[in-house]
This record gives sequence, structure tokens and C-alpha cells, in this order.
Amino acid sequence: MPDKSLRIRRAGSAPPPRRPVMLAIAGDSAAGKTTMTKGLVEALGPERCVSLCTDDYHAYDREERKELPFTALHPDCNHLEIMEQHLQLLATGSPVLKPVYDHGSGQLVRPELVEPAEFVIVEGLFPLWSKLSRACFDVTVFLDPPEEIRRGWKIHRDTAKRGYTEEKVLAELERREPESEAWIRPQRANADLVVRFAPIEGRDDPPDTPLSATMMMRPTIDHPDLTEALQPGLSRAMHLKLERDPDGRPVESLHVHGYVPREESLAVEKAIWTSLGTPDTETPDCLGRLGDARSEPLAIAQLLLLYHLTDAAR
Amino acid sequence: MPDKSLRIRRAGSAPPPRRPVMLAIAGDSAAGKTTMTKGLVEALGPERCVSLCTDDYHAYDREERKELPFTALHPDCNHLEIMEQHLQLLATGSPVLKPVYDHGSGQLVRPELVEPAEFVIVEGLFPLWSKLSRACFDVTVFLDPPEEIRRGWKIHRDTAKRGYTEEKVLAELERREPESEAWIRPQRANADLVVRFAPIEGRDDPPDTPLSATMMMRPTIDHPDLTEALQPGLSRAMHLKLERDPDGRPVESLHVHGYVPREESLAVEKAIWTSLGTPDTETPDCLGRLGDARSEPLAIAQLLLLYHLTDAAR
Repeated sequence: MPDKSLRIRRAGSAPPPRRPVMLAIAGDSAAGKTTMTKGLVEALGPERCVSLCTDDYHAYDREERKELPFTALHPDCNHLEIMEQHLQLLATGSPVLKPVYDHGSGQLVRPELVEPAEFVIVEGLFPLWSKLSRACFDVTVFLDPPEEIRRGWKIHRDTAKRGYTEEKVLAELERREPESEAWIRPQRANADLVVRFAPIEGRDDPPDTPLSATMMMRPTIDHPDLTEALQPGLSRAMHLKLERDPDGRPVESLHVHGYVPREESLAVEKAIWTSLGTPDTETPDCLGRLGDARSEPLAIAQLLLLYHLTDAAR
Repeated sequence: MPDKSLRIRRAGSAPPPRRPVMLAIAGDSAAGKTTMTKGLVEALGPERCVSLCTDDYHAYDREERKELPFTALHPDCNHLEIMEQHLQLLATGSPVLKPVYDHGSGQLVRPELVEPAEFVIVEGLFPLWSKLSRACFDVTVFLDPPEEIRRGWKIHRDTAKRGYTEEKVLAELERREPESEAWIRPQRANADLVVRFAPIEGRDDPPDTPLSATMMMRPTIDHPDLTEALQPGLSRAMHLKLERDPDGRPVESLHVHGYVPREESLAVEKAIWTSLGTPDTETPDCLGRLGDARSEPLAIAQLLLLYHLTDAAR
């Protein structure tokens, strides 16, 4: 029935809607996706940027999942076909009626209308899981903290905000591990940027030093030129390094140490920001916020993403 | 960003999904849409036919609607853009995650996955409301009982099944009348078939006689040829008549009186069914069921729709 397709297309409203810039922030549970997203939405402003979480595409509620032979990290536990459909719709400028998973009660509740703004940030376990879902994004990031760091974050969050006991979280982490390996971590290979927050090995920084960050920038998209701002020898707290990614492909890595002084990070922030060709604009000052504290590595990671969002919108 | 559209299309799964035959059954609240739909789904079998109700696209729950200056019959009270989107997806063979409005509690609840079967029947207040929604259907019907009949049906159903008092239903009917006129009844002009169940004026049939039916068949689709089975003078209980529809356009009307004997209606059923060119197939015997009673006019109306569904599938 190609006639019906044609009829539908001819009956559709013209002109076609404006297409948003789409950013994927993928990563395992409690990898820091929401923290990263929040700073970006705040920097762009909620009128220009909407965010959504792919956890909402869970096909089963918490009670139902107890009876299943897999966890929420398994594709079969999620409406991934619908997630892909909604990503395509958003990427081409259409609204979606997004399902809602309530992490507090563990229930699937009333869906909500999401209209694409200038920027759409999609964070979650599965945004990069298929070729089709990846085709919806302009920029893709995978958050990749070391497992022991992520476990600590997950225990802290799930006991504080989601009503689990520490034992339950530990048991769940163990149950999820094979599925993390099979379905979540492979998405790292498909990200334009892989961001890893971790302490620097071998250093004995005071305990309140922010985590350092390593940003692996794959040449799948054009990154800002930081070679001038980060000439060798100029800085010990930040540096660029040519490396191979875990698959042996060449990448450039930006290392930002947690103890980096504000002046140094400002110089790099300026280099990133002026690469956009709008040197007069101030870099947003809500970046790097971590509760009441501030993290220069987080600020730089967020600014790098902001650079790519702004660049893709042009 | 046409490149992204192309990337999405190229990443999509091939071959394209099979497209279902889509039937719209539009009409005001309690016009008999569910009764009509139920018989068709049963006749085709739930493995070949799914049905959905556009009431599920209510944008507000019952509590929220109390504060609004319009009723559920107003376009602004419904996610009609999403309804259109879902109709397009279903019409082109894709599943949708359909919202769910619970008529019992008046709440919007967890959405459900609807995968298009061979046939998709969409009943509700708004399936024919826009050019785009109409383009999604192969066959369209409007149920058009006289207002006093519909009021009786609505009072009966809403007090028995939806927990309203009779006074509430009457007040609601009055409140809805201007919106029925503005938004629901105009859809009648866009239906291939307009079906009206009503008593025959001037006759004094016993009170348990089924309602008669008038089926206005617009030449917008090809109807089965009934001229031979319904030669003038052959039957008083069923006849064809050339008429003008309320807009002055020519239509053929099939009148089936409530008291029609089973033998006569069987002859017409056979004429409809053999027009499909499969004379050996029995007509489904679940048609015409009205609770525990049987209505020949309903059976013929349902068979006519079944004819069109089967015809469109070829």
C-alpha cells in the first residue's frame, strides 16, 4: 500500500519541523549521567534544552522484574524498539508521548509529552545500543568511571534516594554484572567521547580533592583544537596525549587533574569556547557544580559537550 | 540536517514492515462504537485484528478536566497530534506505546504496547478529525444514532459501568453538546459509511424489536453490489435507496428493518459475502450479537465492514 504512505505524507503539515541537536549520554547505572546532564540543561536553559532518560522505556515495573530471568540492563527488559522510534521522531523534530518510570515507587506511570527543543539530551543505559539509535544523535558520550567508583556512587544514591538497603544494592550489582558486560559497556566503543572520572593512581591527594577526568576524544567528530592552550610543559595539571582506545584505534585524550588550579582550567575553557568563534560570550558559570562543591574536571567535560552542541547547531 | 534523516533511514531495519488494513469507527460518546468493534474483532480473531480507542489520548485525567473550560470532546483536551502520529506509525506497520485512559478511575495510567496485526480497528471520538488522520485509514465509518437514542445508551452505560449518577450524565451531555456539534458530528461528512440505528418512524413494533439500521454508503470506496439481492418488490424489510447525504452529495442507502426475518437477512449477507469472490466461506456467526440478543441490522452492518476490511486486504 504505497498509496497510503503517499497520502499520509501529502496530508502531513508543511513546512517540516525544525530538527534539534541531539546528544546521547550513555553509561551504566550511577555512572554520573544525571549530574552531567543537569549542568548542560542549566547552561543552555530549559527553554532551549530538554533532557530525557531512557530508563523510562522499562517494559516492566519493579514488581514484575522480580519474576524475570534478567535485570533492567537487558534489552528484553526495555521497549527499545519504541525508544528508537521516539529518538527518530525527536531527531526529526516531532514530539513524543514518552513513558515514565517512577524510580521512587518502581512503577510505570502516566506518560508525558516531550516536545523537542533546540537541544535534546538523552541519557540512559541504552541510547547507543543500535545503529538506528546512534543515527539519531549528533554527539555521543559514554561515561566510564572505574567500577569501584561507580559502585560507591550507586550505593550512595540507591540507599539515599530510591529506598534500597546497601545489601540489596550490592546483590543487584552482582546480578547485573553479566548484563553490564554484555549490553552496557559495549556502547563505549560507539561514543565520540568517553569520559572517565577517577582518582589519579599513585597520588596522595587530600580526600576532598575532586576526581580527575580523562576525556577520550575520538576523531569521529571534530574536536576543538587545544594544542596551543596545552603546549607540553606549560601545565602539569592538564595535558593532551595521543593514545589508543581499548580497540586499538587512535584517540586524543585530555587529562584534567582534580587539583587543577582555577586559572589553568580557565585558560583551557577559554580555548574551547573561543574555538566556537564567539570569543565575547562568557562561559556559563553553572558548569562543574557537584552538589555544593565544584569540580574543574567536570566543568571542562561539560564545556566540551557544550562546545559540540553549539557547533552542531550551526 | 537532511544527513541525519538519511542516516536514520539507512540504519532502519529492512525489509519494511507489513502494513495493516485500518478501519476507523468514529462517533460521539456511547454511539455504539465498542459494540460494533467487538463483533468485528471476534469475527476476524484477536490474532489477526487489534482494536484501540482514541479516548486513550485524553491529555487530562477526570480530576484535571473539572478545572478546564472544555470537555473531553474538545481537541485541546486530547493529544491529537500524538494520536495522528500513532495512527501513521500503525498504518505503516510500526508498533506504538499507546497511552491508556482508565474509564473506571478516570485516570491516565501505564501505557501499553500495540503491535499492528493484519487489521487495526480504531474507534473513538476523533479518528476522522483531520486530513492526516483520515489518510491513515482504508475504510471509515461514522455511527450516527438519533440523539435521544444515544442519550439513553449513554445514561445506561455511564451509570452502570463508569460510576456516574443519571443527573451527572445529563449535565455532562448538556455541557458537551456545543463541542459535539463543533468537533464530533462534522466527522460524519468524511466517512465512507454512515450507520444509523433507530426505530422506524410511524411503526408500532413490539418493544423488544431490534432497532433498524440505515447504512449510507458513500461512493468514496467500492461497495458490494446488492442490487440483485435487493430487487424492488422482493423485500419490504430491506431495501436500497438512492439519496442525498446531508451535504447534498449522492449516496446509496441500505435500510434494514429491525423485524427483518433471518432468511431474508441471510440472503443479503450471502450477497455481500459472495461479492468477495470466496463463496465457500461461511459468514462468521458471531455477528449481530447484542448482549444476549441478536440484531439482524447489526449483523449486516458488521458484515459490510468485514467485507470492506477483507477487500482492502487483497
